[in-house]
Amino acid sequence: MDPYFRLHVFCCTNERPENHPRGSCAAKGSVKLRNYLKVRAKELGLGDVRINSAGCLDRCEHGPVMVIYPEGVWYTYTSVEDIEAILSEHIQHGRPVERLRIQALGIQAP
Amino acid sequence: MDPYFRLHVFCCTNERPENHPRGSCAAKGSVKLRNYLKVRAKELGLGDVRINSAGCLDRCEHGPVMVIYPEGVWYTYTSVEDIEAILSEHIQHGRPVERLRIQALGIQAP
Repeated sequence: MDPYFRLHVFCCTNERPENHPRGSCAAKGSVKLRNYLKVRAKELGLGDVRINSAGCLDRCEHGPVMVIYPEGVWYTYTSVEDIEAILSEHIQHGRPVERLRIQALGIQAP
Repeated sequence: MDPYFRLHVFCCTNERPENHPRGSCAAKGSVKLRNYLKVRAKELGLGDVRINSAGCLDRCEHGPVMVIYPEGVWYTYTSVEDIEAILSEHIQHGRPVERLRIQALGIQAP
């Protein structure tokens, strides 16, 4: 069976109190960046890609984080430029953006 | 690379106003059932499985819905019994629960 979405993107938008020791993706700007990604994906006409918000993805130390399925590629991102790179490289052309990837043990060495 | 979670489960908990024509998963009890799933997964010690909430997954007509990655298997569920079936069959033993699956065009014929 073909997947329902070619790519399914989940951006953590979890919010914690400001002084929480784990921090939170929302406190690091994830909501604005997720909204930007959603608008841009629509502008680009990417109808087979779904951009979702998600609760805590439990990788808070790398936040803001997103995961793209079915590949299961994880990203950390902090700017509109990062989102544009993920969009144009990974989402449009299937080439993971290595500099932003999170591996099992942390951000991949360059 | 191994996936970060063996299974990553996303339950829609989107909420819309009561009279919205598309309805919403939250209005159909998804939050309670998602919380039940999360508690039960923890009780069963399923440390390699992540149960997440998600925003609207855009399959509202089948709600409440969940999707399990990396397989990309979609479910509709309405009761604790449905959740228990997905847990014991799919999540613990890798056998999709055909009676609850949503296919591209709707619920699979029995």
